[in-house]
Amino acid sequence: MLTVKTSAEAEKIISDTFGALRTETEEVSLPESAGRILAEDIVSTEDVPGFNRSTVDGYAVKAADTFGCSDSIPAILDFKGEVLMGVTPEFEIEKGQCAYVPTGGELPKGADAMVMLEFSEDYGDGTRALLKPSAPGQHVTFKGDDVKCGAGVLKAGTCLAARHIGVLAAMGYSSVRVYKKLRVAVLSTGDELVEVSEQPEGAQVRDINSYELCAALGTLGCECCNFGIVRDDLPLLESKVKEAVKNFDMVIVSGGSSVGVKDATFKVYDKLGEVLFHGIAIKPGKPTICADIDGKPCFGLPGHPLAAFYIFSLFVKPLVLTMGGAGREMVLRKRLPVTLSIPSNHGREECMGVKIVEKDGREYAEPVYTKSGLISTLSQIDGFIRISRDCEGIGGGEEVEVELF
Amino acid sequence: MLTVKTSAEAEKIISDTFGALRTETEEVSLPESAGRILAEDIVSTEDVPGFNRSTVDGYAVKAADTFGCSDSIPAILDFKGEVLMGVTPEFEIEKGQCAYVPTGGELPKGADAMVMLEFSEDYGDGTRALLKPSAPGQHVTFKGDDVKCGAGVLKAGTCLAARHIGVLAAMGYSSVRVYKKLRVAVLSTGDELVEVSEQPEGAQVRDINSYELCAALGTLGCECCNFGIVRDDLPLLESKVKEAVKNFDMVIVSGGSSVGVKDATFKVYDKLGEVLFHGIAIKPGKPTICADIDGKPCFGLPGHPLAAFYIFSLFVKPLVLTMGGAGREMVLRKRLPVTLSIPSNHGREECMGVKIVEKDGREYAEPVYTKSGLISTLSQIDGFIRISRDCEGIGGGEEVEVELF
Repeated sequence: MLTVKTSAEAEKIISDTFGALRTETEEVSLPESAGRILAEDIVSTEDVPGFNRSTVDGYAVKAADTFGCSDSIPAILDFKGEVLMGVTPEFEIEKGQCAYVPTGGELPKGADAMVMLEFSEDYGDGTRALLKPSAPGQHVTFKGDDVKCGAGVLKAGTCLAARHIGVLAAMGYSSVRVYKKLRVAVLSTGDELVEVSEQPEGAQVRDINSYELCAALGTLGCECCNFGIVRDDLPLLESKVKEAVKNFDMVIVSGGSSVGVKDATFKVYDKLGEVLFHGIAIKPGKPTICADIDGKPCFGLPGHPLAAFYIFSLFVKPLVLTMGGAGREMVLRKRLPVTLSIPSNHGREECMGVKIVEKDGREYAEPVYTKSGLISTLSQIDGFIRISRDCEGIGGGEEVEVELF
Repeated sequence: MLTVKTSAEAEKIISDTFGALRTETEEVSLPESAGRILAEDIVSTEDVPGFNRSTVDGYAVKAADTFGCSDSIPAILDFKGEVLMGVTPEFEIEKGQCAYVPTGGELPKGADAMVMLEFSEDYGDGTRALLKPSAPGQHVTFKGDDVKCGAGVLKAGTCLAARHIGVLAAMGYSSVRVYKKLRVAVLSTGDELVEVSEQPEGAQVRDINSYELCAALGTLGCECCNFGIVRDDLPLLESKVKEAVKNFDMVIVSGGSSVGVKDATFKVYDKLGEVLFHGIAIKPGKPTICADIDGKPCFGLPGHPLAAFYIFSLFVKPLVLTMGGAGREMVLRKRLPVTLSIPSNHGREECMGVKIVEKDGREYAEPVYTKSGLISTLSQIDGFIRISRDCEGIGGGEEVEVELF
């Protein structure tokens, strides 16, 4: 007989059993890498920039030639020439000389600083008057200032966003090694379920979970296969789960996990593998199953869409991220004061949906009280807070940690 | 002569000129709608749930029959039968009767409350003993409790996340009307640029911006065409921009916008349409252009990748969101205390990159000081703060608004 676990115990069982699993890796082109999880540490194989670069439009000088100059006593320097973008100047700056360099252009040898164009005058006689002194290194990015050859730049596990792609482009990575997308099979069980496109009759309801879960998994970068509705028929469910386990990295069945008359998911998981736990002491979503079938994580989520979504966020999502090579820091959290006090939850851990509201330019978390598990709640809330078993209530204005969907 | 604008003026010009533009709309299937922007208000055409539904496994009763019962004085009720999932019971509950209903099952007519299974005993004689009273409506979601027919559920402009897709599925939307993806053309100009896959020689640098901007636009749900590198050649740039304006909703050229010798983007935009502003008083990223060519927004961003990214985030991204039908609330912000004090910026608005760090379970924004515009900064920062022109410095511990990338 499996007893109900606390959420900490359930988390530990999941992470002890499956925490070391990772998807394989693959090489993808740079544009395709957006949103993927980096599978290798990135070390620069060259200096960036590869040359001494001006950060302004102006004159490259030996800084010492400008010391002490001003509007009234300009430094008069011989104009040696103009540097073109992308072209290494063939001349050198010697004492008493200057050269025009555009923003991003290379400083000629001998120059160690820039004077901005607006602090110069062209006397028309082959010289330039500089009206402001420049210190060595001023307005210059030296070779390797940005990234030194051999420096570590990005760590494996980084979820590649636009800015990282910019960095990879700078270092010449036209392709990059990432974790393969986690492949997840999603099934909905229940004799009461009909397709979204169908009109439910009497006590029927539409299959919400498979759409909701596939969308959530897609957002996390998974490839999903929606097996759709499977009737509460043990041999049928068994064959579908077998097929899913064989072809996917993870299986999620929603519905059929309540300890009721049918409890089909438990029976099938128990027959095909080892059920690690059945039931978590958390509200909503107690009837949650986790099983190990052929080394693959298989979950049974509550049939109720709101409960399924909370349980997915709390227990499945962290494993999805880990298996896909990412860290838990990908879960977005905000620490916000609550607008209303929340009473004690009487010794049972609870998830409460919250809406983020703005008052006087500050954000607050507003608890959304609803009857148990209304699906429309999902259209109103931005995330949820976890209220621990021992919590004796949260006062209005107290800060809570909101996990954003 | 166009004078440099403040960022507020630039924002107003952009929103006055292009703020009313929207992409067209299209119908997509529910699974394809994830991440898309809803183009219609969603009103429920039916009651959800469509029947009186139990939220527990237990017995459907007339609540009045249970009033006053307890462990010692149970209410003894005749067992009328069992309700199956998805099936409307054909019998009715009368005074003194009860029926078994699983979680999610329909209450028989006449019943108005549920008693949980754990508070019942089966005497084996065709009766059930109920040990706890139930109030009318307890553990029941009545027809329409979740969503009433005719109720507004989702607003046009919602970015459809998993939870919204759950709500749409519940209401039978197997497809939904969304805004078409904004189509954006991205060009990089500069004679110094080489392809990412090439080894830069001398003063050359790789084209970073087109990859970075396309990735950023992709994250915002746009369809991008990367025109790649265009040499600083006026007729060539002109023909590329013409082609881009003709086929896309928005054009972004990076590089070539500095008021220097070449200033190619300005010349081309000025020839083909109306330049609305050239230069924003903000650091980094002053050389920013916005033009109206045939009614389409065309931007010129600084060539420097970090500056280009800030300017994109501040001025282009809000318009991208608006044109795609979404609201600015899609820009993720966090209000956090800074770890270090930030000195005055001497009368010029400034963007400063920050890293989000955690100390004692709280998040802080840590300013990342770097030499002007190092690309590697992008791998270290999570977002940026705007320091206004008049700011006289920010004290350590003071709260700032961080815009996340």
